[in-house]
Amino acid sequence: MTWSPLAASATSPNLVINAADVDAMQGAVSQPGRFRTAFLAVKADVDAFLTEPFSVPLPTDAGGGYSHEQHKKNYRLMYDAGVLYQITGERRYADRVRDMLLAYAKMYPDLPLHPKRRPGAKNPGKLFWQSLNEAVWLVYTIQAYDLIRPSLSKEDARKIENGVLRPVARFLSEESPATFNKVHNHGTWLTAAVGMTGYVLDEPEWVEKALLGLDKSGKGGFLRQLAELFSPDGYYTEGPYYQRYALMPFVTFAKAIDNNQPERDIFGYRDRILLKAVDSTIQLSYNGRFFPINDAIKNKGIDTPELVLGVAISYGKTGDARLLDIARRQGETLLTGDGLKVAQDLDANKQTAYPFTSWVFRDGAKGDQGALVVLRQQAPDDQALVFKPTAQGMGHGHFDKLSWQFYDSGAEVVTDYGAARFLNVEAKNGGRYLPENESYAKQTIAHNTLVIDERSHFDGNLKIANQKHPELLFFHAGDNVKISSAAIDSAYPGVTLKRTMALVQTPDHQKSFAIDLFDVQADRKHQLDLPLHYNGQLIDTNFNLYAYTDKISALGSKNGYQHLWLRGRGEPEQGLAQITWLNDNGRFYTYSSLVDGDIEILFTELGANDPNFNLRSEKAFLTRRANARAHTFVGVLEPHGEYDPAREFTAQSESQIVGITHKREGTLQLLSIALKDGSTQLLAFNDAAGITDKSVSHFDFDGNQYTFRGRAELFSISDREN
Amino acid sequence: MTWSPLAASATSPNLVINAADVDAMQGAVSQPGRFRTAFLAVKADVDAFLTEPFSVPLPTDAGGGYSHEQHKKNYRLMYDAGVLYQITGERRYADRVRDMLLAYAKMYPDLPLHPKRRPGAKNPGKLFWQSLNEAVWLVYTIQAYDLIRPSLSKEDARKIENGVLRPVARFLSEESPATFNKVHNHGTWLTAAVGMTGYVLDEPEWVEKALLGLDKSGKGGFLRQLAELFSPDGYYTEGPYYQRYALMPFVTFAKAIDNNQPERDIFGYRDRILLKAVDSTIQLSYNGRFFPINDAIKNKGIDTPELVLGVAISYGKTGDARLLDIARRQGETLLTGDGLKVAQDLDANKQTAYPFTSWVFRDGAKGDQGALVVLRQQAPDDQALVFKPTAQGMGHGHFDKLSWQFYDSGAEVVTDYGAARFLNVEAKNGGRYLPENESYAKQTIAHNTLVIDERSHFDGNLKIANQKHPELLFFHAGDNVKISSAAIDSAYPGVTLKRTMALVQTPDHQKSFAIDLFDVQADRKHQLDLPLHYNGQLIDTNFNLYAYTDKISALGSKNGYQHLWLRGRGEPEQGLAQITWLNDNGRFYTYSSLVDGDIEILFTELGANDPNFNLRSEKAFLTRRANARAHTFVGVLEPHGEYDPAREFTAQSESQIVGITHKREGTLQLLSIALKDGSTQLLAFNDAAGITDKSVSHFDFDGNQYTFRGRAELFSISDREN
Repeated sequence: MTWSPLAASATSPNLVINAADVDAMQGAVSQPGRFRTAFLAVKADVDAFLTEPFSVPLPTDAGGGYSHEQHKKNYRLMYDAGVLYQITGERRYADRVRDMLLAYAKMYPDLPLHPKRRPGAKNPGKLFWQSLNEAVWLVYTIQAYDLIRPSLSKEDARKIENGVLRPVARFLSEESPATFNKVHNHGTWLTAAVGMTGYVLDEPEWVEKALLGLDKSGKGGFLRQLAELFSPDGYYTEGPYYQRYALMPFVTFAKAIDNNQPERDIFGYRDRILLKAVDSTIQLSYNGRFFPINDAIKNKGIDTPELVLGVAISYGKTGDARLLDIARRQGETLLTGDGLKVAQDLDANKQTAYPFTSWVFRDGAKGDQGALVVLRQQAPDDQALVFKPTAQGMGHGHFDKLSWQFYDSGAEVVTDYGAARFLNVEAKNGGRYLPENESYAKQTIAHNTLVIDERSHFDGNLKIANQKHPELLFFHAGDNVKISSAAIDSAYPGVTLKRTMALVQTPDHQKSFAIDLFDVQADRKHQLDLPLHYNGQLIDTNFNLYAYTDKISALGSKNGYQHLWLRGRGEPEQGLAQITWLNDNGRFYTYSSLVDGDIEILFTELGANDPNFNLRSEKAFLTRRANARAHTFVGVLEPHGEYDPAREFTAQSESQIVGITHKREGTLQLLSIALKDGSTQLLAFNDAAGITDKSVSHFDFDGNQYTFRGRAELFSISDREN
Repeated sequence: MTWSPLAASATSPNLVINAADVDAMQGAVSQPGRFRTAFLAVKADVDAFLTEPFSVPLPTDAGGGYSHEQHKKNYRLMYDAGVLYQITGERRYADRVRDMLLAYAKMYPDLPLHPKRRPGAKNPGKLFWQSLNEAVWLVYTIQAYDLIRPSLSKEDARKIENGVLRPVARFLSEESPATFNKVHNHGTWLTAAVGMTGYVLDEPEWVEKALLGLDKSGKGGFLRQLAELFSPDGYYTEGPYYQRYALMPFVTFAKAIDNNQPERDIFGYRDRILLKAVDSTIQLSYNGRFFPINDAIKNKGIDTPELVLGVAISYGKTGDARLLDIARRQGETLLTGDGLKVAQDLDANKQTAYPFTSWVFRDGAKGDQGALVVLRQQAPDDQALVFKPTAQGMGHGHFDKLSWQFYDSGAEVVTDYGAARFLNVEAKNGGRYLPENESYAKQTIAHNTLVIDERSHFDGNLKIANQKHPELLFFHAGDNVKISSAAIDSAYPGVTLKRTMALVQTPDHQKSFAIDLFDVQADRKHQLDLPLHYNGQLIDTNFNLYAYTDKISALGSKNGYQHLWLRGRGEPEQGLAQITWLNDNGRFYTYSSLVDGDIEILFTELGANDPNFNLRSEKAFLTRRANARAHTFVGVLEPHGEYDPAREFTAQSESQIVGITHKREGTLQLLSIALKDGSTQLLAFNDAAGITDKSVSHFDFDGNQYTFRGRAELFSISDREN
């Protein structure tokens, strides 16, 4: 596409909010409803700020410190005041923004690089310790400027543009070429900031560079980022925590592009990739919180400001009533044109249920680098199994190929530590990632996947990890069986790891099971550790558990093992090993595994070699097979019962499973679960390539013949039939 | 009072629900509202049960096991079906109760003592492992019988009364004399069951024995229990967890007495002690949960069935609209006459705010055995400080004289372990108290109070502990200062412990502090440990903290110390020692203490010597002073800031305190807190006996003279004045 004149530049404002939005908002604030409520709340906040003097401090502090937080407050305040100016027409809002911008304009030209920048950093800022925050500042501030520009004298506008807006835009583009051109979320913030500034200051060249990279070759820039940072399913390779974060500049800049150059059809770009990205961010959540894969801080969820904006913009573009359901759960109303549409349609109760579904989110720009698989089941309780044969996910990725997480009844059950970080808490490494993020949280042992010889996948080498990825073998989501399988042969030299995970429910929807078949084939003998990190209190084991009482030691010396206290160990006899715990959600969970008499189970608690008390105390057990060239771990996780001390009610605190069998016949695998009531649940699946819905499989089980079509089926065999 | 004829025995039913209640309920179920909703829900549940055969199994299992839970289900079902029979007049409900009672009547006469009774137990049951549960069974079942009696043939009535109701009543009275006569909550259940059965079966003698003891001397029985088990303030010496439990038979039987013999004025008895008991149970909660003192399971709160009934009956008697506020939070509607009144008045929005207040709950039948003190403050956040100079509280009491707990912003901050028990979880010691309840939870070190020479108060001897109690020295609740003081000289031989605790807020309501002055005077040198158990993640210390990394050991070998892992230690220099943690509620808390250079601080984590993983992992730090004959621990707990990773918002993660001083001048004590902003908060109090609101105290501080009236005052001294 060639450059077209900035047709809309005569109207103002015209970034996320345009003149038509302003008209509609001006009308809406006099009517009762969500929008007016939100308007009054923002107005009350800003009015309170306006009674006090403002502060534009010299940049001195790192994240969480005073000057850092003050500059963040400032851009938010300027943005809100700008919006209020447009809605109310009251000059005092515009004047405050003007005064603050004049203060920035006076200070900025003389600022050196930030004193708290990291030594040798490639991306230092001036107002903030890194350029990322500077770009966020400009994304907000250029919108504030766009909103108040009609109120400014020429002289003030000149001072502000020349004193701060242009210098920041220049600093973030020409003077930060590596970050600006980088196909990475930092790059997205920088290009969005610079491109939006280009629209407002009528610098088409800046917009062009933002879209196509500094050299306008298209090798960098916003369009390249859209082309490469999301998979064809709208999955962002760093995972939902950073996807949520990355979304903000994407949707903000896209909305500005759409308002200024609708002919670009930016929301239609790459088969509507941005709208898909908003949707996949929602899908990658449970009970309102994002799945905490890779470097993720756990409390983040669908109510984050980034996704509030994403959902509003997406709704403004599509009118999809299912998004209103999410907006309702977010419970926030934005003072934008899209925010108004959402508010009015929620007031009119137009939402329909948002469908969380079992889905494969392919990874990689072309969708060929593994996938994040979500298996969901609504009965007997809302359940989600997250299976992670994704690519590494760059620098924030964890060494956790084929790991899994499990959610049930609103809670985390089989857990992922997420990131070791206390965001913006100065005393904790300045609020940045903690050393334990590298030494523990990223390591394989911190996840629910196989560790060989106490070394992490790819030996913890990011460069190699970035070049490799698992292969998704199949995915199937039927009524009672959701199942997926994936493999990788590069995580360890000479070893193939293949895992099949299923979420099944009995036809009466009374019982459900998460099934795990982890097959290891190696060219020589290794020690195999399969950890399961759980949330809650250990209740029982069906084998002798030897606990260390007076002293405990670290389980190992490196690759994350140094952080695990060894609390106890057991050597279950051949047959069924069962471990039951009670989760904080008041349900019991039993992990039943098939053991051959050569398995040891180690019980650990996190916290060793943690001199600054940076790690949370979390629990795990490791199923260890020493000296094995090949082994298949067979495990079944069973939610059961209820513990409600408030009602003095305890039900089914014991597992209902009395036996498990697993066998393979060619490409067919049969996993049976025998229950106390005499029934047997039999999962049969065919893992051959190319299975279609019409493929037919036959097998014998306990003297009876069975047939099924397609990938998999669950046979529920009652007492009498057996 | 002499026995009066059972005037009301002609009308039926007449226990908790009487004939007038039935009339009103019959009218209400056709009107929309809470009551109809509750009626339809109970009806749906019972209707579902009626489609299935019932089961009256032979008693074989302990708590949590099948037969135990089935008999519990049965009495609830019979009760509900009885109520439905009265409301709807449908025979199928009465017939199901009849059939179940006939099955009980057939089985009961031949039952031996329960096979799972404790060896040598004084209180075995037949249907259940202990007679307590048998009494609960009868309390429900006699009501069910009373409700369906009009539907029965004479023959069936005879079979049921002779086969089960009379035998159970006999078993619980004549055949369980020790428990029946005991002034203890088990006794209350037994007397309630037998007395209510007496009303229904027209056995005035049984009622008389229930009220006055088997020998009718008044030394035992319900009236004696009312006279002795509650203090004059309605405090139950075992604490709110058991108070809530004890309440059920008290209010149930009282309501039955009130319906049958209104002339007894049972609710007016002992200055309305029962109504006070309901009210104090509510007061002893925070954010809906009871303060977990003594043997308490933490999830219990004001929404427990016992308190739902208590509030309904209390409201029926008093019409106090503040109780409706509690009923609203409980969110449950009872199908009784009182339940109907609550439902209708909530439907009509008649509730007024329930006032949680700072209060002294005197302990002991005469109110002279110490007290439980609650200090509350609404700003800047809802706060409660619980100070525990109570009596021991009998067998469920903990050795924690002068301990405290602190609550802020909806969460536990300074915590109490409560009981070591997984209620009704078979795998955890049959659902009973765990061994760790004795070895840890009851021990002094498990609480936030002083431990001398690593031994518990009274050396853990219950008999001695029951004979001793602290003295409450004073209590004062002013606008900005809530303060209380207590002492005990019998917890350790030759040692006087005196603690003063205050909850203060600055006049602008922006900052609040919990202040702790713990004075120890001994006749020889001891090791003094003052533990503080906290909830959350350690963030920072202002002194060097040496953490054990590869190995950790138990802190001690007995009295609870054997269960604490020693994770780290520090020796702060003379001055201010500060420890900051982040609570799960997203606020920071800093404990600042005045140290003299001879203090060591030990950081612990619970879990040593716990072979069955029975203990939760909880954290504490111990301030240790070795070799001291006298010492005053001076500590200030400061809530501050906010951590909201979902909004990427962190504020004031650091303490604002820069200095603390403490001095005593005669009976005056001065504690100053210097803040970063240059201001000083100065708490002055006079701990002399006999201080009144008019007493005047004078003192000098920093060259200025100050005067205050009454017990205490907070002086907020700004920068300029200083």
